[in-house]
Amino acid sequence: MARHRRGALMWTMTMLTLPTFDDVIAASMRLEGHAHRTPVLRSRTADERLGAQVFFKCENFQRMGAFKFRGAFNALSRFTAAQKQAGVITFSSGNHAQAIALSARMLGIPATILMPLDAPQAKIDATRGYGGEVIQFDRFKQDREALTRELAEQRGLTLIPPYDHPDVMAGQGTAAKELFEEVGELDHLFVCLGGGGLLSGSALSARALSPRCKVYGVEPEAGNDGQQSFRSGKIVNIPTPKTIADGAQTQHLGEYTFGVIQRDVDDIHTATDAQLVQAMRFFAERMKMVVEPTGCLGFAAAAQAGALIRGKRVGVIISGGNVDLRRFAGFIAD
Amino acid sequence: MARHRRGALMWTMTMLTLPTFDDVIAASMRLEGHAHRTPVLRSRTADERLGAQVFFKCENFQRMGAFKFRGAFNALSRFTAAQKQAGVITFSSGNHAQAIALSARMLGIPATILMPLDAPQAKIDATRGYGGEVIQFDRFKQDREALTRELAEQRGLTLIPPYDHPDVMAGQGTAAKELFEEVGELDHLFVCLGGGGLLSGSALSARALSPRCKVYGVEPEAGNDGQQSFRSGKIVNIPTPKTIADGAQTQHLGEYTFGVIQRDVDDIHTATDAQLVQAMRFFAERMKMVVEPTGCLGFAAAAQAGALIRGKRVGVIISGGNVDLRRFAGFIAD
Repeated sequence: MARHRRGALMWTMTMLTLPTFDDVIAASMRLEGHAHRTPVLRSRTADERLGAQVFFKCENFQRMGAFKFRGAFNALSRFTAAQKQAGVITFSSGNHAQAIALSARMLGIPATILMPLDAPQAKIDATRGYGGEVIQFDRFKQDREALTRELAEQRGLTLIPPYDHPDVMAGQGTAAKELFEEVGELDHLFVCLGGGGLLSGSALSARALSPRCKVYGVEPEAGNDGQQSFRSGKIVNIPTPKTIADGAQTQHLGEYTFGVIQRDVDDIHTATDAQLVQAMRFFAERMKMVVEPTGCLGFAAAAQAGALIRGKRVGVIISGGNVDLRRFAGFIAD
Repeated sequence: MARHRRGALMWTMTMLTLPTFDDVIAASMRLEGHAHRTPVLRSRTADERLGAQVFFKCENFQRMGAFKFRGAFNALSRFTAAQKQAGVITFSSGNHAQAIALSARMLGIPATILMPLDAPQAKIDATRGYGGEVIQFDRFKQDREALTRELAEQRGLTLIPPYDHPDVMAGQGTAAKELFEEVGELDHLFVCLGGGGLLSGSALSARALSPRCKVYGVEPEAGNDGQQSFRSGKIVNIPTPKTIADGAQTQHLGEYTFGVIQRDVDDIHTATDAQLVQAMRFFAERMKMVVEPTGCLGFAAAAQAGALIRGKRVGVIISGGNVDLRRFAGFIAD
């Protein structure tokens, strides 16, 4: 399996075994009874404003408030008895940390989670609340991935990274699978894009269940590494972008996720922070939902898409709703 | 039909023809394809805190953001051709105004809505936005009901009041009907109580679909006229209560609603404003939902119910999510 330094070599699809829609089906069976089958909501106001029929798949109502539970639970469900006993390790300051901690608790697996020293206390508490062992590190002085590998080797732990893993991607694909099963084929699908786990999984489901559906990733305008990678044909690295979409502050796509995105995604759009705030207000005021900034990416882009989607059936995946209440209040009250 | 002065005579059930579950079934057929079939959401955290299995029926995701659409649309659907041509009239400063305006527009019926001069501009705008003719009055100097009757006679309009009407009650009952159809029988059901439209309709559905289910109304502690009425056996009037639950500031139950409540409801609970704010924060933080203060009544009471509901299957109807974003931000950020 290819293990190159990021960006140092051309990415080569044939060297990786990419997940398939069969893996998404298997994941959906593993998640049955554990993940919520989240609702698909409609809004006449959204339809009128966009001149389209819009179907919102609401992963903000997923367990622990984000789609990340799907991928984490699916990956841990595939552990062998020995892996289960030894435990899982991951690095994340966001929703993936809690997803791993919760899934591990449900499956009786010890979980070690590396979080930066300056991660929000609420997220550290939530991860510990699910029973995860949190190890903090200085992200300005220590290399997160090296530290993780070291710990994994010392303790015999299996690493489940936040997005670049076939089982994680297949799990994330179950959200779009449920959307298509519920509403039928779509013309366009807008999906938030950080590291590409949700986008690549969604694309696998779209290709199988709605082959003519155009699939778009949506990134923060300030961090369009995915768009650059998609257009240049190789994984582009950027400095951590400044954006309110904290779930999409990734610096580069993964090798697996890029493989699927390059093959199955039609385009990458971007949205500004101001457009995200506008979408967040729309969700709160008209759809009565709390959506985190990253979760607003899909709708923010669809709202700018104009003639592209007019008169069409459009899916939007809302990735999550984990935003500090005070911060959320600040966004919507302005 | 009995037409007595409020509280002046003992209320006599036999003189009114109360709606039945058959009326709820008929309403649900009229609403098919027009009202949203709102989702039932779960929360493990809620389950753990209450020591029960809690099923939230989310009418905050209903059209125009509240269950009121169900009753209004059902009532207007039953108009004769002559009534449709002449139009509908109602009085409301809240969700019923918008529900009537929207339903009337959908059915091609002219709508006249009396709103107090000091109603929030946003609600007046929303009602006008749905095409309703808003007539404002001075609620300190003018008698709202007399004014409505006068206008109705002058213009030949049919009055659809906010709650005390069999067709409105039957429409509201479709929310609980959907809940039971989706999750099966329940042990307890908590329903917000203002004028009693939602509670009485819910009780009709509970009696038919889950006969052993205990049905509770929940009022603001500051305005417990329903509790007093229920316990004394006659409709009690109170001054407009001071509470953040603006949808439950009613001064008295209706004759029809009281008839059903007396017969089919098991008890009336209350909740303080502080408990409503706590519930509102819980919904926003853990369930990613915007719920208006009145919509928090059911869960606030269930959260105080302790041993009564431990280990049981508990339904909670969330009535709506129409709260000004700044006001909402103030509640959740404190």
